[in-house]
Amino acid sequence: MARKIIIDTDPGKDDAVAILLALASPELEVLALTAVAGNVPLARTEGNARRLLELAGRPDIPVYGGCARPLVRPPVTAEHVHGDTGLQGLILPEPSVPARPEHAVDMLVGILRGAAAGEITLCLLGPATNLALALVKAPDIASRIAEVIWMAGARSEGGNVTPAAEYNVHADPDAAEVLLNSGIALTLLPLDLTHQVRLTRERLTRLRSIDAAAARAVARMFSDADGSPQREREQEGIPLHDPCVIAHLLRPGLFVGRRINVAVEIVSPLSLGMTVADWFGVTGREPNATWLNQADAEGFFDLLLERLARLP
Amino acid sequence: MARKIIIDTDPGKDDAVAILLALASPELEVLALTAVAGNVPLARTEGNARRLLELAGRPDIPVYGGCARPLVRPPVTAEHVHGDTGLQGLILPEPSVPARPEHAVDMLVGILRGAAAGEITLCLLGPATNLALALVKAPDIASRIAEVIWMAGARSEGGNVTPAAEYNVHADPDAAEVLLNSGIALTLLPLDLTHQVRLTRERLTRLRSIDAAAARAVARMFSDADGSPQREREQEGIPLHDPCVIAHLLRPGLFVGRRINVAVEIVSPLSLGMTVADWFGVTGREPNATWLNQADAEGFFDLLLERLARLP
Amino acid sequence: MARKIIIDTDPGKDDAVAILLALASPELEVLALTAVAGNVPLARTEGNARRLLELAGRPDIPVYGGCARPLVRPPVTAEHVHGDTGLQGLILPEPSVPARPEHAVDMLVGILRGAAAGEITLCLLGPATNLALALVKAPDIASRIAEVIWMAGARSEGGNVTPAAEYNVHADPDAAEVLLNSGIALTLLPLDLTHQVRLTRERLTRLRSIDAAAARAVARMFSDADGSPQREREQEGIPLHDPCVIAHLLRPGLFVGRRINVAVEIVSPLSLGMTVADWFGVTGREPNATWLNQADAEGFFDLLLERLARLP
Amino acid sequence: MARKIIIDTDPGKDDAVAILLALASPELEVLALTAVAGNVPLARTEGNARRLLELAGRPDIPVYGGCARPLVRPPVTAEHVHGDTGLQGLILPEPSVPARPEHAVDMLVGILRGAAAGEITLCLLGPATNLALALVKAPDIASRIAEVIWMAGARSEGGNVTPAAEYNVHADPDAAEVLLNSGIALTLLPLDLTHQVRLTRERLTRLRSIDAAAARAVARMFSDADGSPQREREQEGIPLHDPCVIAHLLRPGLFVGRRINVAVEIVSPLSLGMTVADWFGVTGREPNATWLNQADAEGFFDLLLERLARLP
Repeated sequence: MARKIIIDTDPGKDDAVAILLALASPELEVLALTAVAGNVPLARTEGNARRLLELAGRPDIPVYGGCARPLVRPPVTAEHVHGDTGLQGLILPEPSVPARPEHAVDMLVGILRGAAAGEITLCLLGPATNLALALVKAPDIASRIAEVIWMAGARSEGGNVTPAAEYNVHADPDAAEVLLNSGIALTLLPLDLTHQVRLTRERLTRLRSIDAAAARAVARMFSDADGSPQREREQEGIPLHDPCVIAHLLRPGLFVGRRINVAVEIVSPLSLGMTVADWFGVTGREPNATWLNQADAEGFFDLLLERLARLP
Repeated sequence: MARKIIIDTDPGKDDAVAILLALASPELEVLALTAVAGNVPLARTEGNARRLLELAGRPDIPVYGGCARPLVRPPVTAEHVHGDTGLQGLILPEPSVPARPEHAVDMLVGILRGAAAGEITLCLLGPATNLALALVKAPDIASRIAEVIWMAGARSEGGNVTPAAEYNVHADPDAAEVLLNSGIALTLLPLDLTHQVRLTRERLTRLRSIDAAAARAVARMFSDADGSPQREREQEGIPLHDPCVIAHLLRPGLFVGRRINVAVEIVSPLSLGMTVADWFGVTGREPNATWLNQADAEGFFDLLLERLARLP
Repeated sequence: MARKIIIDTDPGKDDAVAILLALASPELEVLALTAVAGNVPLARTEGNARRLLELAGRPDIPVYGGCARPLVRPPVTAEHVHGDTGLQGLILPEPSVPARPEHAVDMLVGILRGAAAGEITLCLLGPATNLALALVKAPDIASRIAEVIWMAGARSEGGNVTPAAEYNVHADPDAAEVLLNSGIALTLLPLDLTHQVRLTRERLTRLRSIDAAAARAVARMFSDADGSPQREREQEGIPLHDPCVIAHLLRPGLFVGRRINVAVEIVSPLSLGMTVADWFGVTGREPNATWLNQADAEGFFDLLLERLARLP
Repeated sequence: MARKIIIDTDPGKDDAVAILLALASPELEVLALTAVAGNVPLARTEGNARRLLELAGRPDIPVYGGCARPLVRPPVTAEHVHGDTGLQGLILPEPSVPARPEHAVDMLVGILRGAAAGEITLCLLGPATNLALALVKAPDIASRIAEVIWMAGARSEGGNVTPAAEYNVHADPDAAEVLLNSGIALTLLPLDLTHQVRLTRERLTRLRSIDAAAARAVARMFSDADGSPQREREQEGIPLHDPCVIAHLLRPGLFVGRRINVAVEIVSPLSLGMTVADWFGVTGREPNATWLNQADAEGFFDLLLERLARLP
């Protein structure tokens, strides 16, 4: 039986790949997409979620708009990475199916209360605002979630938005605080791991050889104008952060890590949103997350390409 | 025409007096009570709201349960002040009417969207969690609220829960941060003001002379075992904090203050939840609240006693 | 036998009055003045200390220059209060006696080690940088100081440099932290107290009737251009902060307070340098200072005017 | 002509190796050792400095005791790493030459003022308290220091005392703040680099083959009871942190890095003392340090062993 997941997302280019990967995988049943403000504002992320479903031929999956702002602090977007549309390089038609009228937070509370305990897994690809709000509004849902798998945090790589902080945590550190203290089974895929999973020239060539709209869309988003793979900082190839969350569900063996305590910095402006990951267990604080920090990048791309080839 | 208000509350002994004062006042139309965790846990505050409505003969007013925990941090209760039941000294029967099934946050969003802009005023008597959550979930409601009047904060009096912080802000400083940055017209009644409004021996005697159940209930909650008025710290008489919010609606001339900037401390453990009130305008930050700091205590008690006498 | 004191100071107009009051008082033996950067930069405060000694006919008392900057953070000066010279309104000749070549911190360490335990009292009229540096360099001196009496802090009055912080603490909060944790007997005279001690029109008239250079100098510093007493904020008359330190040594009965715990905010930018004074003992932290908060202002001015009349 | 250096140190086992390496190197003229509290209390570090000089046959080099505590906060020692004596595994006789009576801070100020600008280089092997205190006491010395080379900080490796902070910075973060803001030419050798420089089994064997007291002492300090090299965490071999500072002076080509901005966390308890190193230049803050993060470990050990062989 397929594993039931809800994908909470702020597409976002790598969110797009994650969503396509999930839709292409029969092991997963995507119950819904919930959108959150993040990389680009909510109106964009919600529309992009629907565009991607139609691209993949799955307009039947419902999309719910969620929070347009973080829990406490002002919004931080990342248009310099994802473009004004959130899906730079990709031009998709206006979606024909509207978003559902219900707020994502209410849908989450409702569906979790209606499901068996441990039935539904949440995949978080953006800031944790929607889930945090649901937990504050309805604390009882914590015990009904099977697991939360979140692309979030950084330890050995430093941050990507400040020297200390990764974007998804930095954009709503207070939501991360709520989630880390919730007692929910939590797996984190930080930059430490996702920076090992890069779309290199060779992998881009393999991707381009797939004759399918979805695969072509992915190739376009991560190519520079001259068709070469985009670079990040000093390394070849753009890391594909968010798809790792879905890949972890499909092939847990691709990634290795450890159960540790993770705390988030909500105090200091200098390091706001940093994940303080106690890798060596020096603090005495109880483990509250599984921190994955090693990836089998070749295995990941084998999986990704095989699955993208299944989509229309 | 009566002014439409919603009372968000964590009763709480002085909350009880505020609710009774509102119910006794024809100038106000109480649309609903919303309960929040605060002085005592949510199950208690929600039940107490219904008990008080029945005491006042108004079981028709709906009660909605709201948030059982603060926005980001762990809960802080105040049973040492209000007793385990929240209404120490008062024994009220189980309420016969249940709470409404809808969550207070959803009711707030719905009623505000359904009303004309500026039609509804919110009276906050506890931590601001419910309203903050509503603002994060549905930022559009900010422009529909006529005004928020909140018993919150301290400047010249110092705090009551720590040397720096007043309870309603300290119990959910992040919610206060959301509200102070919302742009909503906001009036604060801090300890600076409410500490001037004390139930002294003379005023207690006047209260006792009222032959009505509600007045007797109030007298009982604020009397010591020997019938003398409760003392606070080094002064005679307990301050009646929350009723000042309602009194301000009924007789704005009772209280005097100034429009200033108020910021809340969400960074330092030492002063967490302190309201930094820029009374002298030295910071250059824009005013975002009216800070009332002088009370006509005699006028307040004249009003309160006159109104309590109208209740059954 | 006269009480031996060292005055650590950043003159500063009210520092000047304090120094003159000490010099006019036979109960006190002023061993030295040490200068610190504060109201104005060090070169100014050190020169002003010598100018004031010559005005009072006491060029024999040595002056030592100390720290030109705070312990950790960038300097904050207060020329808007004290003028560019630090003694606005007063024109004093260049001093004829130079400052001593030894650094104030070294002199403090040396003189304290050479004296009997409890022989010397320190009067602090500015930021606590010099003493804090001495304590870090030579922790053994803590046990040799009789008492530190410091004009510092604010509770019920709010701050004077930010809404939360008084200048002497705000200008070097880390030095205050060192001092408050030193175990030295410490008496604080905060704004709560000094704001009660105002040079009103009536008191200024009495001051002007004294036929002496020092008294005239004080009158000039605190008069507006038209000869009326300077105003502060919304009240008549300028508070004479620093002289209260000396008056407390001369007539302890003038001021009343309580032993409490005082902590200083060194974490949050919003409330940096605030003194969190646990007046009601709610924190359980051990008392570490005597916090004086009530003044006999009439008694203070009787003393001050009587003493200023003794100077040349 | 030999480069004139002062070594400020809290020996400490790796401090010991650094000192021996400097003494064995004719390119360097060690003007003095200054001791600071750190790994073990000041009395120990100061005595160890003299013990090491006598071990190396250089009792002529003066040793000055410095600060026994950090600038602002309570001390943090590291006896679990260095043993109660600071030189666990090594038994050295009581030193015959006493420490100089002058305080290290005063010596630093004096020698720097007496030397030509840029004549003297400071090597910091422990917390930066002594230099920070000197800079607060005598800001003019900043312009006279050729360069400060400091074993301090961590970025990609995380901390060693907390998940976020390296010991030398964590033990006195405020001193680090003073130094990083001083404008002095500063080179940092963080854990990122020193963790590459490990005394492995093979290198220990080479060390043991040197027939000299100093080399034997080093081997003893870093061997386990069974003679195998000590392990750290999950890797073979103990990193030799502090000797990298001296090796960088002798062979700058051994280490590679970049000029970047480094800020230190002095606000949040969670990440206190973390160095926020802006490796990718995302903050816009001006570079204030050279951050070395790659080591030629083989080259380092070739140098170290060659030099240790020259000592008695």
